[in-house]
Parts: sequence; structure tokens; C-alpha cells
Amino acid sequence: MNREKLLAESGPFALDSSLRVPLAGSRKIYVEAAAGVHVPMREIDLPGDREGRLWIYDTSGPYTDPAVAIDLARGLPPLRGSWIEGRCDTEATGGTRPRRRARSGSCVTQLHYARRGIITPEMEFVAVRENQRATDGRGPGITPEFVRDEVARGRAIIPANINHPELEPMVIGRNFLVKVNANIGNSAVTSGIQEEVEKLVWAARWGADTVMDLSTGRHIHETREWILRNAPVPIGTVPIYQVLEKAGAPEDLTWALFRDTLIEQAEQGVDYFTIHAGVRLAYVPLTARRVTGIVSRGGAIMAKWCLAHHQENFLYTHFEEICEIMRAYDVAFSLGDGLRPGSIADANDAAQFAELDTLGELTRVAWRHDVQTMIEGPGHVPMHLIKENMDRQFAACHEAPFYTLGPLTTDIAPGYDHITSAIGAAMIGWYGTAMLCYVTPKEHLGLPDKQDVKDGLIAYRIAAHAADLAKGHPAARRRDDALSRARFEFRWNDQFHLALDPDTAAAFHDETLPKESAKSAHFCSMCGPKFCSMKITQEVRDYAADHGLSETVAIDAGLREKAAEFRADGARLYRKI
Amino acid sequence: MNREKLLAESGPFALDSSLRVPLAGSRKIYVEAAAGVHVPMREIDLPGDREGRLWIYDTSGPYTDPAVAIDLARGLPPLRGSWIEGRCDTEATGGTRPRRRARSGSCVTQLHYARRGIITPEMEFVAVRENQRATDGRGPGITPEFVRDEVARGRAIIPANINHPELEPMVIGRNFLVKVNANIGNSAVTSGIQEEVEKLVWAARWGADTVMDLSTGRHIHETREWILRNAPVPIGTVPIYQVLEKAGAPEDLTWALFRDTLIEQAEQGVDYFTIHAGVRLAYVPLTARRVTGIVSRGGAIMAKWCLAHHQENFLYTHFEEICEIMRAYDVAFSLGDGLRPGSIADANDAAQFAELDTLGELTRVAWRHDVQTMIEGPGHVPMHLIKENMDRQFAACHEAPFYTLGPLTTDIAPGYDHITSAIGAAMIGWYGTAMLCYVTPKEHLGLPDKQDVKDGLIAYRIAAHAADLAKGHPAARRRDDALSRARFEFRWNDQFHLALDPDTAAAFHDETLPKESAKSAHFCSMCGPKFCSMKITQEVRDYAADHGLSETVAIDAGLREKAAEFRADGARLYRKI
Repeated sequence: MNREKLLAESGPFALDSSLRVPLAGSRKIYVEAAAGVHVPMREIDLPGDREGRLWIYDTSGPYTDPAVAIDLARGLPPLRGSWIEGRCDTEATGGTRPRRRARSGSCVTQLHYARRGIITPEMEFVAVRENQRATDGRGPGITPEFVRDEVARGRAIIPANINHPELEPMVIGRNFLVKVNANIGNSAVTSGIQEEVEKLVWAARWGADTVMDLSTGRHIHETREWILRNAPVPIGTVPIYQVLEKAGAPEDLTWALFRDTLIEQAEQGVDYFTIHAGVRLAYVPLTARRVTGIVSRGGAIMAKWCLAHHQENFLYTHFEEICEIMRAYDVAFSLGDGLRPGSIADANDAAQFAELDTLGELTRVAWRHDVQTMIEGPGHVPMHLIKENMDRQFAACHEAPFYTLGPLTTDIAPGYDHITSAIGAAMIGWYGTAMLCYVTPKEHLGLPDKQDVKDGLIAYRIAAHAADLAKGHPAARRRDDALSRARFEFRWNDQFHLALDPDTAAAFHDETLPKESAKSAHFCSMCGPKFCSMKITQEVRDYAADHGLSETVAIDAGLREKAAEFRADGARLYRKI
Repeated sequence: MNREKLLAESGPFALDSSLRVPLAGSRKIYVEAAAGVHVPMREIDLPGDREGRLWIYDTSGPYTDPAVAIDLARGLPPLRGSWIEGRCDTEATGGTRPRRRARSGSCVTQLHYARRGIITPEMEFVAVRENQRATDGRGPGITPEFVRDEVARGRAIIPANINHPELEPMVIGRNFLVKVNANIGNSAVTSGIQEEVEKLVWAARWGADTVMDLSTGRHIHETREWILRNAPVPIGTVPIYQVLEKAGAPEDLTWALFRDTLIEQAEQGVDYFTIHAGVRLAYVPLTARRVTGIVSRGGAIMAKWCLAHHQENFLYTHFEEICEIMRAYDVAFSLGDGLRPGSIADANDAAQFAELDTLGELTRVAWRHDVQTMIEGPGHVPMHLIKENMDRQFAACHEAPFYTLGPLTTDIAPGYDHITSAIGAAMIGWYGTAMLCYVTPKEHLGLPDKQDVKDGLIAYRIAAHAADLAKGHPAARRRDDALSRARFEFRWNDQFHLALDPDTAAAFHDETLPKESAKSAHFCSMCGPKFCSMKITQEVRDYAADHGLSETVAIDAGLREKAAEFRADGARLYRKI
């Protein structure tokens, strides 16, 4: 079905106007990184703060810039178009919308360029983006050369298919900000195209650094096309899902069908593929005694194929051919953990770690082909077993970026798995995981709706930021400090604007104190005016200031005097009663 | 104002009937611990599970037993009445409701009994309660003697005022299940008595092990009386709040007013007091350069008093007299961290750790008086600084139980601080913190309503359980395993019943698949029937079973055969293409 027909069928594809409004108190700015490279950022206006404003990383894309006209049927402007053309290493094939691929003999991956010492506009872009202007005039921060070096070493990837010129480049690696992925996609049971495109824009608005389209239902190709053309963030897929739609049953999958589907999706512009090439025939029996068997859909499909045919996984045996396809479009590998544990009972078992070792082996193969690679990780893992996952991945996969699903730290809270997993995600992010795949409250129960997508993203932005703080990322703490200053000084609106979710913060405050005057009140409804510790602390400082001394000195002077008395009195801890 | 008048003013004090229903799929049972000691537990019916049922810890009190008649005006039955009387070391003072205190020369604390080698009914009760019948016929589990020993060493406390006979005893200590506290209480701005009593019952229903009444508004004494008489869980307070209500301003606080208030509350039956005796005069200036100064209300009040009078904190100078009062009722200390950090910027600073050292010094004093003691902890702490808090508390406070507020791992998510803090709470619980004070989504913004109380509790039950799993508590993992078995076998109702929040889990599932038939469907709306990994895994097992072999052997045998072929073929990783 073509896009026009689908459009007619779906009705007018207009974006809800609420998705075009900048976040409260913010506006979009563009920072020049190099000639022709402008990096969008979000500027938060902080009238009462000593800094006046704060620039932060902005995943939301052109949608939050009212000056950009959006037409979903046409797609976003091709930000990277001239960069890709300028490299003169691709050729376009026919069709109403030309599809590019590498010229014969060329490799077009960011890893290839990085290894040859080339700093691409994509690298310039992400360097400026990571810094968030935190280092303006204060040291170099993250340089384009550092980005290039990390990509060249395989420690970071910039997923950026040459057929996805609309994307704003981002980097995934342990020495950068921790990233968050949001899954969307319809299933056979529910959800349509319009809903998925809106989820995409919504997810980017609330902080998705990449989005995976996990559609398995009808219109799988068309849904993806709409998503890609309107996606300012890299899009990942699990190609085996579409192959299964075509084949009908796992045992009828073939390499030929898989190969054609990879090319189909690579031509559309998918930026990374989850490939379950590590589910080797020999590992399948290791899952037989598990409490929850194989919980990865892709892993289960491949396991069934292996058993049905009594053959090695064809993704493993054809891995080098897959690399050949990926490098012609710069699709990155997300090597899937098809044997990840689906319960606390199955965490860190032989099946999981056998597959991880194979993923490490495949990483080397991918790198030999200059294909960018990251590694997927669990799943369900109790806290005390999380670090082993990071340590083993680090060693087995030669520092390729780790990309984990949570992990969930307990199985007993369906309905709240965004929380059970945010705990594990924050920890493994701190330990070195580069990207966290979000989990929504609907995990294990149903497909997420818009609110679930937002709830999952906020939980994961919290986890990623907590990890950035713990890792000591130089740009991370500025936002915490700005918000805490606003809190201490009762600048309520500044607090809301600095919050991950300004709307909810303001709404919660207004539930009990809705009047505009309360926005500058020196208390909130938690404690009321008399019990407000912040107010009392301010009074303590004022007391010192009234006595004509700087606050610290005033108190120190008074105390020195008292301390002298105390010592003179024998420095007894307890006075006679 | 007396209770009758208040009752008349408030209208009929009937508990909402939804609070009297057992949680879905559960019923209350009573396990005999010793003569006259019966421990309530929650039995979850699991018709399809190999165990048939699961017994779990139940904080909800008599409210979830339909056989118990509840009359809020009369209060709960005095479960501990005969135990306390049987010890013959207390005397009752007059009034319509007699108030007990220790006979002259007697000490009535659980610590006192434990040190003398006495196993009290309270200790018998908590030993059985902690085990959750996990060890029926399988080893001793937690014994009453172990409980006594932990209490005697000061490593655990059983908060149980002799004037709170209604409570079901519980233990707080690092070698027991991690506990959760919920704060309720009205402020000058909002909330009434009926609402607070309902919050108490609601909080116990959703897993509060203790409840702190932080009321600061009108009717502070009466609110507390209603709460205590209807509380199956220990109740904590911060007495300085009421003292300030009486005094009017921090500088007008006096020791006499404080002492009288302590006795008033001890006679009512408060089980533990937060006392900010560690906010010493000399530490106040250490907070002057902080981003958020002093954020503890009690800490700020005492700091202001100290500065206004240029005198040492009277709670510190009168600490031994406070101990004398506490031991006469068995009120436990919760030594308050008045100088805890209120922002990431202020974490682990000199002020915080100076106070912690003083709390350690006061712990020894309290123990000299046989007063049970725990120590309050932060606050706002980034992940990489959390462990230092636990390690220092452990060393400075001689293994007295740690009781932390979160900690919040970032400042940037007002509206979601139940999540920012559940991350820190889970980690510090794993490291050894004995009780976690919950944080609700309204933290920093307003007073929590019923939904916020529940959201905060679920987040903290997750954190506590994740910590129990990581610590390897023998009874903890059974629930995860039972839920995961139910998940794998598509026993949807069993999954819901095992969930921390059965109602939400079922509602989320039913949003997309509401029909009763879907409750036994072998898929959910996430993936649909074709892509369900659990279904495919089951097919893999069935395949093996159909071939007349046990699942593991079948697959193993097939694979051994194939592996032999593989090796014979040269064991090449990649076949020639």
C-alpha cells in the first residue's frame, strides 16, 4: 500500500498541536558546531538565577521549534543531506524517493571514517551536543577529535544510516551522556500508524535518544516509513519480526528472506538492527531448566528455527554477509541478547553468558567490516548480580557499548516495572552502560499508550541522569544545582522549568496552592509557612547579614565566642542536672 | 477537645468499605508463634502453582480480616495488652483510658529484656512474622533467640510503646527484612483527622511497616490519638513539631515544654520519637555555604534556637533526661539527621558527617539507659556517594539500625521523587539500611493524597524487596519465583494476585484484553499470539516432550548429535559462502 492511499485511509495526518509547543519556560536555540553544522539545544530561561539560563540536551527535534513548518506527509528537512552527498561515496537508486547505498568498493560507516582519521559533521555535531555549552570558555570539554577517537576504538557508535538524513546525530558510548531508548510499535492486537507516529514525536519530546519500532502487525513497512521520515532520532528495528510476518512461521524463515528484509529496511533508513546472531543451537538446551525459558521474542523465534531444522542459527552462519549489507548503509549492529534472563531466577546463568561470549566474538567480526556495534543486555537481574553483567560485557565485547533493558531488580511488581527497572538501569548506567532501553508501566501486561511512554521515559531520564551524576559527567550536575538553588530561593516557576516534567511538577504544586501568588510564596503546602526549613535557614542567614557580617563569618564569630566559653566551662558533654 | 466532641464535629467516622476488603486473591491467616501469640499473615491462593499458595508478610492489620469488627471510635483490640500486663513491671495512671508507665525502678524496653536474656512475646511474634512460613519443615529460619540477640546487641529494634497495645510487633534491623515507613499528617494548610486515619489504614494496606504522624496543624493531639488507637503498625512522631505549636516560635522553645510534650506523647503510645539532638551549635555554621542549607524541619528549628540563644542544643544537653522518659514507656529513639543534605550539591559534607558522629555518641548514651535506638539518614545523595553513608553510619553508630529518607539520586525530577529516591533506597537497603522512609510523588511540591501515599509505598516496597533479594534474605525470592512461574505458564490471575499491586496489574492487562477468556490466553497484547516468546519456548519444550524424552534430555540428545556433525565438519565458525 502506498503512502497516499494509507494517508487517505487514515484520515488527515495532522500532529496534535500540543506536540508543537516548546516545553514550559524553554526555547530552541541553535549552536554552531562547524560550517553548516548547527546543533539544536533547549534554553531554559531562569530569570532569578545567577546564571540567567541553562542550556540542556534536546532530543525533541524540530517539533519544539515553532519556526519550523511540519508536514508529516513530507517528513522532516534532511539535516544531513548535504553532509552525506558531500562525502561522494554513495549513489542513489531510483524511485520517487531516491535510496542511497555505498558506491561499490566504498564503506560509508562512521567507524570507517573515524579509523581513517576523518572527523565527520556527525562527529562535530555530537561533540557540541554532549557539552551542552557547559564548558563555554571553561576548557575544551568533549572535542570532535575525542568523539572520533572513541568511535574509532569501537567504544562509541553514532547510529546514522545514510538513508535517514532527517536525524540529529547522537553518540552512544560509556564516555558520553547515558542515553535512553523508547520502544514503540503496533502489534497484531492493537495500535495504528497515526498512533505510532504520535508516539514517536511524543517520545522524542520526553527524552528518547533513540526509538525502536517494534511493529509486528499490519502495514509494517508503511508504519516504519512514516516513522523514519519524521524521526529526528535514530530508529532501531528487529528485522526478524518483519521476516516472520513474511514467512508465517519460525520454521519457515530463510536466509534469503532475511537478507532481502535487511536491505529493504536499510534502504528505508533504519539506523540500527537488533540481530539475534548469538542464539546458537548449542545454547538452546541451556535454557530448558529455566523458570521463564527464552523471553526475547527474536531469541525464541531463532531458537525454534534452530531446533526445527537441527541447524546452527542462520544469522550466525551468515554473519559476514550481514556485515556487508550493514556497511553499505551505515546501519549499526545492536547484537541482540536472545537468551537474556526473564526472571530473577534465571539471571546470570550459563545460557546468558554463553551468548554474551558469542556476541563478543561477533563484535570483532563486525569491526573487521567497519560496522558500528553495540551489545544488548538484560533483562531481569537482582541488584547484587548487576555489576557482573557490566564487567563481563566489558571484557567479552572489547568495550563495545552496552545497551541494556532495565534490568528489572524484582519480578513482583507488574504495573510498576518502569520503577523496578529504573533502579537497575541507574546502577548499570553508573557502572558503564551506554544506553538504557526503557520499560513502561505496561511491561508484561500490554502495549504502552501515550501516558505509559511518558512515564517510562521520565523514569529512564531519571536513571540516565542519576548515572551521569555518579559517573561525574561534567555537564550533568549543573541542572541539579540550578534546580536546588531555585528550590532554596522559592523560585517555583524556575523549579518547574528545570524539572524533567515541568507540567506535572507545576500541576502537583497547584493542587493545593493554585494561586499565582503562591508561585513566589516562601513556603509550600508540605510544611506550611511556620515549619518551612528553607525559610528558617534563610532567616538564619538574614540574621547574620543584619549584624553586618557575611553569613559564614557572622556565625563563625558567634560560635567561636561560645566555643571559648564552652571550653572554659570544662567542655563537659553533659551538664549537671 | 475530647474525642466525642471531635467525632460529632467530624461527622460519622466510618471507614470506607473498600479498605475492609482483603487484597485480591488473598485471605488472612494466623500462625501460632507461642502460647497466646498469633501472627497474622497473608495467604495468596495459587490454584495452578505447584505450591498451591504463598504466605507473605502482612502489614495491613485487622482491617483486611472481614471477621474482625472495626469501630474507629473504640480502636483496635489490644493485641499486646496481656503481654504487657503479664510482665508486672508497669503501673496504670487514671483517666477514662488508663496510661501505663514503668514502675519506679523498672525498665520496660525490649532492649532491657533482651539484654537480660528474656524472649518476649513481641520477639516470638516478629520471628515467626519474618519467616513468612518459608522454612516450614526446612530448617530453623529466624528464631526468637536470634531476634533477642540482635535486639540485645542494638543491631535491631522492636518499636513497641507499652501504651500502644494495638500494634502488631515488627523488627527493624539489617539482618531482617527491609522495612518501609510512610509519613502522613496534616499541616497548617490542609488535611483533617478523618483523612489522616484513612491514610493510616490505606498506608498499612499497601505495605507501610511503620507510619510517622508528622502533623503540624490544628488538633495535633487528637489526630494522634485517633491514629494510635487504630494503628496496627508502630507510630513515630517528631515531638518538636508539637512543641513549636505550643511555643509559637523556635526561639521560644524550652526544655520544660519539650519534656512535657515527650511525656504527653509517650503516654498516648507513640512508638518512636525523632529527636534532633545531633544538631549541635558548632555544626550550624558548617551549613552556611550549602546550596540548600538545612532542609530538615526539626533541624532548622533547633538551629534557629541555638543561634537565637547562642547556646548548645537543649536536646543534646538534656539527652540523658530524655532517655529516662523513653525507657519508662519503651519509646525508641530515631535520632534525627537535622543536617542531612537537601541537594546533590550538599551530599556527604562536613555538616552531615559531624552530626552523624554525634548521633553515634548519643547512641551509646541511649544504650546505657537501655533505650532502643535507630539513626536517621539522608536525603539527597548521588549514587556514587551512597555507600559511604552506610559505611560511616555503620562505624560511627556501632551497628544501630539505619533509617534513611530515600536517598534521592538526583534533584531534577520534582513530581517523580518516589522514583529518584527508590533508586537510592534500593541501593542503601542492599548495603544494610534497615528501614526506608518513603518519598511520594508530591515531595517538594505539596502534601500527598491517597494516591500519592500508595504510589510512594509501592515504589518503596519495590526498593525494599529488591534490597532483600540482593541481600539474599531466604524468604524473599519465593514470591519472585512464584510470579515468574505464573507468568511463564500464562496464569494471569495468579500473576495479578502475586503482584505488589494486584488491582493495577489486572487493570493494565484488561485495558487491551478485557475478556475473561484472555485470563487464560497464552499471549498478551504486548506481542500478540504469533510473537509470544513464552509461547514459543513452551512449544520448544512440548516438541521435546512429544518425542518421548524429558525436555532437557531431548534437546541435549539432539544437540549432541548435531554437535558431533559440527565437529566432524571442521567446527568452522563461518561456512564458505
